[in-house]
Amino acid sequence: MKIAILGGGMVGQTLGGKLVANGHDVTIGVRSADAATLSKPRNYAETLDDWVKATGGRAADFATAAAGAEIVFNATSGLVSLAALSAAGSENLAGKVVIDVSNPLDFSDGMPPFLPAALSERTSVGAEIQKAFPEALVVKAFNTISAVVMVDPGQIPGVELLISGNSAEAKARVAALARDEFGWQEIVDLGDISAAQGTEHLMPLWLTLYMQAGSPLVALKVIRGDGA
Amino acid sequence: MKIAILGGGMVGQTLGGKLVANGHDVTIGVRSADAATLSKPRNYAETLDDWVKATGGRAADFATAAAGAEIVFNATSGLVSLAALSAAGSENLAGKVVIDVSNPLDFSDGMPPFLPAALSERTSVGAEIQKAFPEALVVKAFNTISAVVMVDPGQIPGVELLISGNSAEAKARVAALARDEFGWQEIVDLGDISAAQGTEHLMPLWLTLYMQAGSPLVALKVIRGDGA
Repeated sequence: MKIAILGGGMVGQTLGGKLVANGHDVTIGVRSADAATLSKPRNYAETLDDWVKATGGRAADFATAAAGAEIVFNATSGLVSLAALSAAGSENLAGKVVIDVSNPLDFSDGMPPFLPAALSERTSVGAEIQKAFPEALVVKAFNTISAVVMVDPGQIPGVELLISGNSAEAKARVAALARDEFGWQEIVDLGDISAAQGTEHLMPLWLTLYMQAGSPLVALKVIRGDGA
Repeated sequence: MKIAILGGGMVGQTLGGKLVANGHDVTIGVRSADAATLSKPRNYAETLDDWVKATGGRAADFATAAAGAEIVFNATSGLVSLAALSAAGSENLAGKVVIDVSNPLDFSDGMPPFLPAALSERTSVGAEIQKAFPEALVVKAFNTISAVVMVDPGQIPGVELLISGNSAEAKARVAALARDEFGWQEIVDLGDISAAQGTEHLMPLWLTLYMQAGSPLVALKVIRGDGA
């Protein structure tokens, strides 16, 4: 399958590496400026160059990556996701499943980051992406756990994949991909894309647990009493 | 033990009812205006009047309730908690454990409510209370589950009480109270009061789960992989 992963950071590289290893044709999309400097030893473009050499995956600008893909992951920072997806081009997203892995974490004040109100108070990045790209089939998923757990959920026994989106068919495809490519066994469908706000809002507690444990192998699981 | 519960809504009445049943001297504190109308059949003052008659607990204005108490619950809406605690009087909170059960849920746009940025973006109600009342020993707790579960955690097998606060001694007292009065068995100490932001941020996901299940018997549990 041809897969685009927008965003060349740790999350994009981890997802992409696993999908290449599984035999897929994966292109990581980055900003044009980054794509032009892929061979230069400079910030994350350097490690993306290494990723290409190590995995056999490809790197390109956002639009080139998205144009040929059957499925698109958004693994950019939630702060810039709308801009990144605009650069990818709405025509390259229309009709496709767009898996939004992002969180709007603002590190400008240092640690811990915060969720800026414009992207969180009455909305979410997932909901804003769906609104800006109405022909894309946006599914929020994978944003509540560390990248290492996204592609290897067995690292946290009982971990659940929390997904939301307006298209039941798109959610079923993401659930199948999560199961077949990464080994996810427990999937919780939270409803339409408005539920993305809830999963993005998990970040402050998740970061607290991560910093307290000194390990990213922490997660939050839905539990229920009788009748719920 | 003399206990004040600030806030006469469903949460305050549920906590108070259980504590009266356990033999404690409980006073629910409400605004002076509400206290003056306790015997009048009007909004929640009516049900609070019923609560007094049914339980044998007492009701008073915020300051009267807090003045005599050894321990103070804040069960007001997070939107007005700072005002309610100011009305209770900093001198009536100094040196006392203040258990902050609140969430800053703004229902002014209808359902679902949202967390207003001023009380959530870079802070939390719990942290703001501790800042405004530095001599109080603020412990954030009980704000991530329904009132019925606060006093009967067995309704959700495996449920955890998430607590945070700057005083280890105050947290130990709250943990003992949760265990002895309500039956809590699993308590997760998230660290200092800055962690209150994470638990208040659980509300959007919790409300999604609640509305989806049609039951308040839903919660989020911390799970970990090896070494975390």
